[in-house]
Amino acid sequence: MDQRVHFLTLSTADLDAARAFYADALGWTPALDVPGEILFFQVAPGLMLGLFDAVKFAEDLGGGGEVGPPAGVTLSHNVESPAAVATLVTKMADAGGTVLKAPQEGKFGGIFHAHVRDPNGVVWEIAHNPHWRVDADGRVILG
Amino acid sequence: MDQRVHFLTLSTADLDAARAFYADALGWTPALDVPGEILFFQVAPGLMLGLFDAVKFAEDLGGGGEVGPPAGVTLSHNVESPAAVATLVTKMADAGGTVLKAPQEGKFGGIFHAHVRDPNGVVWEIAHNPHWRVDADGRVILG
Repeated sequence: MDQRVHFLTLSTADLDAARAFYADALGWTPALDVPGEILFFQVAPGLMLGLFDAVKFAEDLGGGGEVGPPAGVTLSHNVESPAAVATLVTKMADAGGTVLKAPQEGKFGGIFHAHVRDPNGVVWEIAHNPHWRVDADGRVILG
Repeated sequence: MDQRVHFLTLSTADLDAARAFYADALGWTPALDVPGEILFFQVAPGLMLGLFDAVKFAEDLGGGGEVGPPAGVTLSHNVESPAAVATLVTKMADAGGTVLKAPQEGKFGGIFHAHVRDPNGVVWEIAHNPHWRVDADGRVILG
């Protein structure tokens, strides 16, 4: 199996709130927007984030799963400095995000970070990670 | 905010089971393996998947969140044909995955797919998606 994720799909209760948060407030550009069904944003080379209507998400998975917000998952976005963490967290809060953890030193990995929940329960970690870099070819270097 | 995910972190109850599934059985190469804490695999240019010990995941998030398997999230891996979907699903099941949905036509998006749950509850969609391609520069084209 190739070591590759092509789509990251998240159960989304309110697609309009997602569009308002990511596209209108944070300035992201949707790759595809099917109202009432799914909203796609490209978030890395070859990787699409799909915000999929929660009812359709559960239906597609089958098995009578509950329709709830994503849990046990965080998405991290790295920025260049601790100050940039604070600036972005404020922007996300102004856009309707909920700050779960104010900017602070992390317990793991030597990072400075904060956690912000989007309007549909998706938790973002906004981090400054001095032990992380990405080479020109996309290879991630840790430590 | 740059439209970018740098880390995708999943709450993982059993890191040894994750290592056995992804590294030993499926042939993935860890980028970093800190036993008892976290196991990293690079899964796209600039994107690291972090399988983070479930107790530490909850502790890091704070707020007394429950320690449970990921929910409301699926990771998709695309392959070149419906037959390749079936082959990979069999390989994942042999490796200890649980087939939630046998290979079949999807209800959404004109795809042929299956769902397989890994030993820690992470749901993979294995798909053949004829309406998807990735350009040489990493741009994803849908439809």
